[in-house]
Amino acid sequence: MIGIMRKQIMTLVVAVACTSAALAQEALWSGGQVNSPVVNADGTVTFNVYAPKAVKVEVTGDFLPPRKVDTQTGHMEVPGWAELKETNGVWTFTSGQLAPELYSYSLRVDGMEMLDPSNVYINRDVASVKNIFIVSRENGDKGDLYRVNEVPHGDVAKVWYDSPTLKMKRRMTVYTPAGYDKGKNYPVMYLLHGAGGDEDAWTTLGRTAQIMDNLIAQGKCRPMIVVMPNGNMNCQAAPGEWARGMYKPSFMASLNFAEKPVATMDESFPDIIRYVESHYKVAKGKRHRAICGLSMGGGHSFATSKSHPDTFGYIGLFSAGLHIGQGAQGSFYDALQASEKDKAQLDRLFAAKPQLYWIAIGRTDFLYQQNADLRRYLDEKGYKYEYHESEGGHIWRNWRDYLTAFAQMIFK
Amino acid sequence: MIGIMRKQIMTLVVAVACTSAALAQEALWSGGQVNSPVVNADGTVTFNVYAPKAVKVEVTGDFLPPRKVDTQTGHMEVPGWAELKETNGVWTFTSGQLAPELYSYSLRVDGMEMLDPSNVYINRDVASVKNIFIVSRENGDKGDLYRVNEVPHGDVAKVWYDSPTLKMKRRMTVYTPAGYDKGKNYPVMYLLHGAGGDEDAWTTLGRTAQIMDNLIAQGKCRPMIVVMPNGNMNCQAAPGEWARGMYKPSFMASLNFAEKPVATMDESFPDIIRYVESHYKVAKGKRHRAICGLSMGGGHSFATSKSHPDTFGYIGLFSAGLHIGQGAQGSFYDALQASEKDKAQLDRLFAAKPQLYWIAIGRTDFLYQQNADLRRYLDEKGYKYEYHESEGGHIWRNWRDYLTAFAQMIFK
Repeated sequence: MIGIMRKQIMTLVVAVACTSAALAQEALWSGGQVNSPVVNADGTVTFNVYAPKAVKVEVTGDFLPPRKVDTQTGHMEVPGWAELKETNGVWTFTSGQLAPELYSYSLRVDGMEMLDPSNVYINRDVASVKNIFIVSRENGDKGDLYRVNEVPHGDVAKVWYDSPTLKMKRRMTVYTPAGYDKGKNYPVMYLLHGAGGDEDAWTTLGRTAQIMDNLIAQGKCRPMIVVMPNGNMNCQAAPGEWARGMYKPSFMASLNFAEKPVATMDESFPDIIRYVESHYKVAKGKRHRAICGLSMGGGHSFATSKSHPDTFGYIGLFSAGLHIGQGAQGSFYDALQASEKDKAQLDRLFAAKPQLYWIAIGRTDFLYQQNADLRRYLDEKGYKYEYHESEGGHIWRNWRDYLTAFAQMIFK
Repeated sequence: MIGIMRKQIMTLVVAVACTSAALAQEALWSGGQVNSPVVNADGTVTFNVYAPKAVKVEVTGDFLPPRKVDTQTGHMEVPGWAELKETNGVWTFTSGQLAPELYSYSLRVDGMEMLDPSNVYINRDVASVKNIFIVSRENGDKGDLYRVNEVPHGDVAKVWYDSPTLKMKRRMTVYTPAGYDKGKNYPVMYLLHGAGGDEDAWTTLGRTAQIMDNLIAQGKCRPMIVVMPNGNMNCQAAPGEWARGMYKPSFMASLNFAEKPVATMDESFPDIIRYVESHYKVAKGKRHRAICGLSMGGGHSFATSKSHPDTFGYIGLFSAGLHIGQGAQGSFYDALQASEKDKAQLDRLFAAKPQLYWIAIGRTDFLYQQNADLRRYLDEKGYKYEYHESEGGHIWRNWRDYLTAFAQMIFK
């Protein structure tokens, strides 16, 4: 034990001595050593901000009741703001009791939006950077599912695969479950992000590794590989992770690049499968492959599954953005009825009897009608699918829920 | 091509339609759509901040000439501040011409330190979160080495290994070079972080993946595996990545945990090697193993290499924090002379003739004397080592340089 104590002392001495500058910096940054946010035992959350010179400090985030805003297309919900109160330079606000969930928030100090100086846990959603916290009150609740728990953990890798179809090497995220080194014949879920996102989105905003670790540990889903490719066909990787450099991300960034995609997601998808099935211990065949995604990734799942009707046994459309050529005013149902090619593809897909075709969407999602149109078409044809309708709109909270549900329905 | 165009339009429509709320948010966050920072062709950098209500906006970072501050232990350098000038609500500052390098910075708006709202590229250094940018003026300069270039990329994985010695599963980062799937018998560099850091530090602050990709592509170092474990022996992983939850990181965090380490880095190191050599295509034997690290990780490299004298052919001490029991006032040289155990270990290590024992430190590093003490001892014993002295102090700029130099000297 002497050796251990020595090491500890050494660490202490080195840390103190070497970091007087860094510690001063840290004290400054961390706002006078307040802690924020503090998730209280009763499920309320307290925010503390050291800002002795500020006149007004506010917090906004999805933990607050949303404000409704009227727009041309109906009402839209945006996060509300709450004011913090000041005592001795420390501004404080305590929320009401929150449901178990992963929340994101930011501050506004005298009109400038900023991150919480005391919270290093940050998620980027396209160009927006927010602090996060998790509320969990008991084992097994939703917050517990998103936490890192004392369970076996899968590995998460950023790997580069070759896409001859897109004529580039591309980066994707691969989750392999705990015990992978001893197992074999794993099924694979291909999990696709939405517009503006990238191969990092599902593991950060989506908490995929934690959800899968926890579901697998609880015996609620089969150990599986989860493959999260990049859905922007003229990008090699997430912003900053390829040779284009540290460009400013936006929903439109990849559309503005001079280089246009040379193929679509569904055309290039075989490159992804080829890489996965030659590099990982997977079971082959459609009963061992699922494809699902959110928004644009739901559209990619729709397109890729019908372009390759014998490839995926499980298909999940999460708040899918569906488009097969309709104009701005045309309905998806009319466009589908007018497209012999798409109708034939869907016919082949459902003739091949996928084990599960799952459509999930929130009641207030702006894509609700598109998905209702798709259901109307599938109903008329007698194609078998399952439908899940939730509260809320086009938000990550729903997509984490849909992933959680879908993962438990597949490969059974 | 029709299919491609349709997909693009779909992406556009979906993105626009679905994200009116998000876009409003994005516009707010991104500060009126200014771009910042802009790295100009001449190597100057322009910062732009939209802050119409602010009275004073400043920027600080390691791109500015440091201010010297007198302390009890001598002078210390801290980053300076520069004031931005306002025009129509946009505050601007342009730096002088900067040397090619990775820089970090933050803003101060009316006294509150904050990140740049227009820059999503962020590094965490212990508890401090800063924006980053890279200046590169020509191919082959240091900025170019830190960039993601159009070269083959290695994969980076976060993997969980079992440490029976520490009685826990632990997370580490593993870089495998491009072409790994077709190669065999790779050498392994074990690369260790400093106090307050974790298994993420070398890939974020250290740009390890980019440095290795670029050096390998240029033929300047051998393709190798780089293993970056966590050096806090009572932690499983980086903050937020293990079951302790989203605690506030600090240099002292792990020392304050109730659970104390049950073994040291050098005692538990065989667990890491066992995992790596049973999971990766590696060449075994000391000629194919290097160990190196910065600050506390340099201390770990010093301790681990002498505890296992036949294990590592290449040893690198980067600004090493060395401690073998000396008191606050005692010199490292005296402590070493007084420790029969350490002297015997060093004797065995150098009798085994490591291919390289490399000591690197900056002239103004507060650990300079310790390392001079070690050199004095090695000189007196006639032990063979190489020494590199650089400008500057205990900073990441130096550690990236040392990694770059060390990687080119090993496995030749």
